[in-house]
Amino acid sequence: MAEAFRIALAGLGTVGVGVLRLLERNAALIAERAGRPIEVVAVSARDRQRDRGIATDHLRWHDDATLLAQADDVDGVVELMGGSDGPALALARSTLEAGKPFVTANKAMIAHHGHALASLAERHGAGLRFEAAVAGGIPILKALRHGLAANRINSVYGILNGTCNYILTVMERDGRDFDDVLMEAQQLGYAEADPSFDIDGIDTAHKLAILAALAFNSVVHFDAVAVEGIRQISPIDIDYALELGYRIKLLGIANRLDGEIEQRVHPCLVAEEHPLAQVDGSMNAVVAEGDFVGRTVFEGAGAGAGPTASSVVADLIDIVRGEAGPAFSVPVGGLTALRPMDLDTHVGRYYVRLTVKDQPGVVADVAAILRDEGVSMASLIQKDGGPKDSVFLVLTTHETLEAGIVRGLAQFAALDSVIADPVMLRIKAL
Amino acid sequence: MAEAFRIALAGLGTVGVGVLRLLERNAALIAERAGRPIEVVAVSARDRQRDRGIATDHLRWHDDATLLAQADDVDGVVELMGGSDGPALALARSTLEAGKPFVTANKAMIAHHGHALASLAERHGAGLRFEAAVAGGIPILKALRHGLAANRINSVYGILNGTCNYILTVMERDGRDFDDVLMEAQQLGYAEADPSFDIDGIDTAHKLAILAALAFNSVVHFDAVAVEGIRQISPIDIDYALELGYRIKLLGIANRLDGEIEQRVHPCLVAEEHPLAQVDGSMNAVVAEGDFVGRTVFEGAGAGAGPTASSVVADLIDIVRGEAGPAFSVPVGGLTALRPMDLDTHVGRYYVRLTVKDQPGVVADVAAILRDEGVSMASLIQKDGGPKDSVFLVLTTHETLEAGIVRGLAQFAALDSVIADPVMLRIKAL
Repeated sequence: MAEAFRIALAGLGTVGVGVLRLLERNAALIAERAGRPIEVVAVSARDRQRDRGIATDHLRWHDDATLLAQADDVDGVVELMGGSDGPALALARSTLEAGKPFVTANKAMIAHHGHALASLAERHGAGLRFEAAVAGGIPILKALRHGLAANRINSVYGILNGTCNYILTVMERDGRDFDDVLMEAQQLGYAEADPSFDIDGIDTAHKLAILAALAFNSVVHFDAVAVEGIRQISPIDIDYALELGYRIKLLGIANRLDGEIEQRVHPCLVAEEHPLAQVDGSMNAVVAEGDFVGRTVFEGAGAGAGPTASSVVADLIDIVRGEAGPAFSVPVGGLTALRPMDLDTHVGRYYVRLTVKDQPGVVADVAAILRDEGVSMASLIQKDGGPKDSVFLVLTTHETLEAGIVRGLAQFAALDSVIADPVMLRIKAL
Repeated sequence: MAEAFRIALAGLGTVGVGVLRLLERNAALIAERAGRPIEVVAVSARDRQRDRGIATDHLRWHDDATLLAQADDVDGVVELMGGSDGPALALARSTLEAGKPFVTANKAMIAHHGHALASLAERHGAGLRFEAAVAGGIPILKALRHGLAANRINSVYGILNGTCNYILTVMERDGRDFDDVLMEAQQLGYAEADPSFDIDGIDTAHKLAILAALAFNSVVHFDAVAVEGIRQISPIDIDYALELGYRIKLLGIANRLDGEIEQRVHPCLVAEEHPLAQVDGSMNAVVAEGDFVGRTVFEGAGAGAGPTASSVVADLIDIVRGEAGPAFSVPVGGLTALRPMDLDTHVGRYYVRLTVKDQPGVVADVAAILRDEGVSMASLIQKDGGPKDSVFLVLTTHETLEAGIVRGLAQFAALDSVIADPVMLRIKAL
């Protein structure tokens, strides 16, 4: 057997410990598949004393993670500290500048600095890989790199945040409010103490920007992602959606059209027969649509020590095999800068719920506004259940310009008969 | 741009033409991802005159496909003729012996000769790839090679034959008989004139044997696959299954347990909440369960010109990148010969339907037989609907040894009150 490939590991939280465990438990199998054993020689983490339930005494300890790459006996670095800047970024730079391969699960860093790091990697002939940054254990970046490489991909989208999907699943199952389920999720450890990265869609947006770059061979453009989270989702809309044959999911959606890129993160009504509608709890799933392969769907665990470690070590195996290739599948010079699409020009179907006074003429007013905006209704139902003396008007539209819906919503809100903020949700096309 | 990688293509049926089209339409993108253009220089097919709807005049024509690899200007060969032996195998051998990479969609050949061909490839330092042989456009072999490479995979299974899945889907949707739907599928071109490879499970078994070898890093062992097809499935059982919360799918299932391998192809009751239950029509889906990643599911088109071409060209791209690696993910010397498991020792749940005379005492007889075989019932329902003066007894069991069920079935059949062959179907565990 060839000499071991020696790595340094920065960050010994849940995922870091998962990587240590995986490298230990599957050492023989990994050595066989990679062609060489993979061995951890050095680590760095905040608290040396903490009991992590795994032996780390035999590993050299560095207090300053950014120095890990400098050691002569380190062939590559794995970064699991997190944070888009700071020590993680410093370590990425120092590793790549030393011409050594760098593997990370850090979606925020790759979403913000992926392009610059890929350039650095290329300049120094070092591998840069981040499979674990998107959809945890689902090997979607490798699927785009290898399995779907013959296709022009024009659409990639999915359920990319397990916390949101868990909350929406429980809200639907139990008919409970968002705040209530979020609090429980925090107590159970499924949601962070500060949950905003997850529930406001930022985490999904990080992952989407990376996914889109790999799918389209384009420059990562995180700032161009339009983001809405799930705080405003109510069990009322979940129920009406179900009645209409849909389930509500937080999706990240990226489309490419004529040199433009559309990147959106928001809750969506997903038709029950769509593969994503069946993805429940903390699972993730990604759909990639290629011009020859058609629709492919990849489902699995989006987070957790085991699945994330699976992706991190898969990156290491590719690197050890000499099969890392360019970070974004093609050399940096070949990555296209796509123009962000104006969301007003998005064409899709919409769900709108209005809380209105129970009096004659309301439907006529609503219908007139939509007609004047050129929006064609697909369904309209009036429903009891609103606050005192009010009812809900629930409507869906045929395909229409988002700009028309946005203007229509403003006019609805201005009607005397409309007594609460209108709710609008997008419908994902089958 | 570097010089083109020049290939010869054997077989110009639907898939061959799909590959030509794909290489033409996505030429620029492929050149960028592969690092070099991929160009077809020679072809071979049975009928030179046939109109294939695509220009082939500029390609050198060989009447003898086995000579394609000999040409100096051919860097690699793609085989799409089919047939486990004969010209396809001769071409595989001559290509690999010439030290040139060989890409094929030929599941029968790889299921029968994959191990020998992998040895030959290794001896001559040539790449051997066959992504398109399993599940068409779903890049499952690459997922096992790359994305899931850090995991010990103990179970891999799925819906691997689109024809069977289409027939079962239509039988369920329309309540029609097998023969009727098969005939229609043949007229529509969804099933072959001689459909037995598909509907008797042979095609699924070919794919399963390849899938298992890649998942377990074991020697392909097609002869050890236990195979049942779908001819005996009736709308009656589909309906009862639905009533019990299941859908009937033809699955290929491979499990590894303590040095043993279990490989089975047969119809299964799949619980509605299982991801495979939602895979309809001609779609395929594969589940791989890894020790760290957990359950991952891959879904897509299992056949057709576009999806198959997508997988063939993805193989070519990996080869041109220099990322082909060993045919079965580890060198041939590292492939384990697993002992085929005795199916009688399989432990699972079962569905049994008996057609019995409508008279007292039958349930007691049936229950006594199961008790004596140590089989515990999970449910038992009596149903009208049998032929004159008879009823159906539909039962499901808890987990039990297959040997006990097989003995029980023989005893049921011997009862005077049982007037038709008992129907037995296996239930896939969640």
